Amino acid sequence: MFITFEGGEGSGKTTCIKRLKTRLEKDGYRVLLTREPGGTPISEEIRNVILDKKNTKMDKRTEALLYAAARRQHLVEKVWPNVKAGKIVICDRYLDSSLAYQGGARGLGIDAVLKMNMFATEGTFPDLTFLFDIDPKLGLARIAKNQAREVNRLDLEKLTFHRSVRKTFLSLAKRYPKRFVVIDASKTPDETLDAVYKALKKRLKKK
Amino acid sequence: MFITFEGGEGSGKTTCIKRLKTRLEKDGYRVLLTREPGGTPISEEIRNVILDKKNTKMDKRTEALLYAAARRQHLVEKVWPNVKAGKIVICDRYLDSSLAYQGGARGLGIDAVLKMNMFATEGTFPDLTFLFDIDPKLGLARIAKNQAREVNRLDLEKLTFHRSVRKTFLSLAKRYPKRFVVIDASKTPDETLDAVYKALKKRLKKK
Repeated sequence: MFITFEGGEGSGKTTCIKRLKTRLEKDGYRVLLTREPGGTPISEEIRNVILDKKNTKMDKRTEALLYAAARRQHLVEKVWPNVKAGKIVICDRYLDSSLAYQGGARGLGIDAVLKMNMFATEGTFPDLTFLFDIDPKLGLARIAKNQAREVNRLDLEKLTFHRSVRKTFLSLAKRYPKRFVVIDASKTPDETLDAVYKALKKRLKKK
Repeated sequence: MFITFEGGEGSGKTTCIKRLKTRLEKDGYRVLLTREPGGTPISEEIRNVILDKKNTKMDKRTEALLYAAARRQHLVEKVWPNVKAGKIVICDRYLDSSLAYQGGARGLGIDAVLKMNMFATEGTFPDLTFLFDIDPKLGLARIAKNQAREVNRLDLEKLTFHRSVRKTFLSLAKRYPKRFVVIDASKTPDETLDAVYKALKKRLKKK
């Protein structure tokens, strides 16, 4: 089974994933946690090119293609073999992040980015996607709090961008209602973990 | 004007391009020579990932996506601005190499690779493409000769692959007859240069 977690900054998905793994393992499931971009040596090399601060001239489409290349390699080397081996593979960000960030917020268009990613994924969609939905103002405030600082001007300037990311994620949840479970990420970590666990157990029983 | 040179190994295109530049500059044209993958710092970084000998596990689709990413950045930073500035931009390999190597010889399919590259290029095709056509046996023999060695077992094993590359290039020339000029690369360097120069001058006059 292939499960992805999506959502904006400060939505708490990464924390939730780690706790979810522990709980699932107590139930006897074998779980692999992984993340995008990265997870294999080649994907990490590509990730370094994407995140290299020198690369200020990187075009939006170059960036989207590099994410897709890292995704492909990660699928081939990590996701597919582990799903095949019967594990629950949980991935922190996947295809929907490209659709929301590059397709939506950066304006390349959801369908154009999706089509290009079909080449990379050969149509591999997750069995289940948890969208950690939160007002970006709240998410950014959480991040600032974790870094023990006030929400600054830069954070606020980014608000329009993050609102567009959120809007696109929600539109994707509407587009793929069977695959998406929207989690109210403004709640406490215990509450969101319970909501995720409950929805997941229901799916696992169906299998 | 955007001109590309395509062809198999040992076809002599790189030598020809250099001499062509000199001749065109004598005629008063401003010429920029460039090559794929590479040509910009970001593209060079991507090229390093592609050519890194450690990366033996690289999937064919990952490779094709990385070539497309390097291509995109090269278009944005180098090809488009120089064509706009009125130069003749001559590129050693471009889109058709992806179609022939990844699409044809590696079996990903020409149309799949082309579609994905439409995302990268936004439909930028060259104004003119010279295909240096040669029997791979002859091309590989030339390379071996340059390296002062015999054609070896490895070269011969690669023959099937290079024959498939050649076949795909020729099918592309048929598919895009207005854009392609097929050059018989078995002839001498002087003869191929003359053939290229003549065909190019004819196009330049039309402009």
